[in-house]
Amino acid sequence: MKNRRSIRKYSRDSIPLEKIFQILEAGTYAPSGANLQPWIYIIVTDNELKEKIRKEAEKTERSFHEKAPVQLRRWLKEQKITPEKSFLTEAPALIVVAGLTKAPYWLESTWISIAYILLSVEAQNLGTLTYTPSKTVFLNKLLRIPDDYHPVAILPIGNPAERPSPETRARKPLEQRVYLNRYGDKWQN
Amino acid sequence: MKNRRSIRKYSRDSIPLEKIFQILEAGTYAPSGANLQPWIYIIVTDNELKEKIRKEAEKTERSFHEKAPVQLRRWLKEQKITPEKSFLTEAPALIVVAGLTKAPYWLESTWISIAYILLSVEAQNLGTLTYTPSKTVFLNKLLRIPDDYHPVAILPIGNPAERPSPETRARKPLEQRVYLNRYGDKWQN
Repeated sequence: MKNRRSIRKYSRDSIPLEKIFQILEAGTYAPSGANLQPWIYIIVTDNELKEKIRKEAEKTERSFHEKAPVQLRRWLKEQKITPEKSFLTEAPALIVVAGLTKAPYWLESTWISIAYILLSVEAQNLGTLTYTPSKTVFLNKLLRIPDDYHPVAILPIGNPAERPSPETRARKPLEQRVYLNRYGDKWQN
Repeated sequence: MKNRRSIRKYSRDSIPLEKIFQILEAGTYAPSGANLQPWIYIIVTDNELKEKIRKEAEKTERSFHEKAPVQLRRWLKEQKITPEKSFLTEAPALIVVAGLTKAPYWLESTWISIAYILLSVEAQNLGTLTYTPSKTVFLNKLLRIPDDYHPVAILPIGNPAERPSPETRARKPLEQRVYLNRYGDKWQN
């Protein structure tokens, strides 16, 4: 958990599908509302399809960046996050995660599953990133996902071709996040 | 991930706060939208406060069960899930997790943090459960949580006093959850 970092640059080496299945199997062990296991995963390795996904995602992001609040726009700039999503074509595989919206707590359950996947990718010494396009209906169209599933994230998977700066690992002090019995009441360590 | 199970019965042995801090520290390593780390955790060990939380939660659940769709009501009955939430007073500690609603992707980020906590609890050989009250504003009141934080879950923490049946570990076949390139397209293993 502490070592895992979001990776934005990938080498183009392909990843054995078997490894991806193992990672996704871990994702299915997440707890879920009414145990309905509402998630599906689409592995995208087809280059033409990845190009199309990138094109649509970048279109969505350009519109998002234009409408973003000033503070967020500044942060995005500082982090060098632009509407360009080159990892969508550079990573050898993308995992599109969608949830069945009629299941209770489908969004929460699906995000626990994504967390399991993030950690499994790390355990396989691979890199990934939680990319949440601001709109995702283009994924329903391109990947023929039925309307009752809502795509929530694209996780590129591959060998990292960058080492993120240690700053991104910095965490706010636990004292500002943890309270005892009531908000604002400090605990003594 | 595969061994972790939701625990509904706890022994009353208390858990060292130090262990709970370690667990919550792991939670803070989750990735988050714009790296804003929008989560807070309130550890509730005070018995009177736990009683009040249980009382309010059960009131909310009785109303939820009455309004639940038939299919869900049947499933809840089969699983022996009733509006009674005895774990809220029996577990030695509760962790109330809330997210800062003005942060981008606050709900998704907070649920990744919860997943990290679930796995850290397992790594400490303790038990927990993802309990999502159908309404949570009573937690804002009882724990004096500011309105800009939305409580999303209560995680009881303690030593398990039950062994869930192996059936609850059963997963839908991976073939029904994973597709290659397009929904419905099977992968060959």
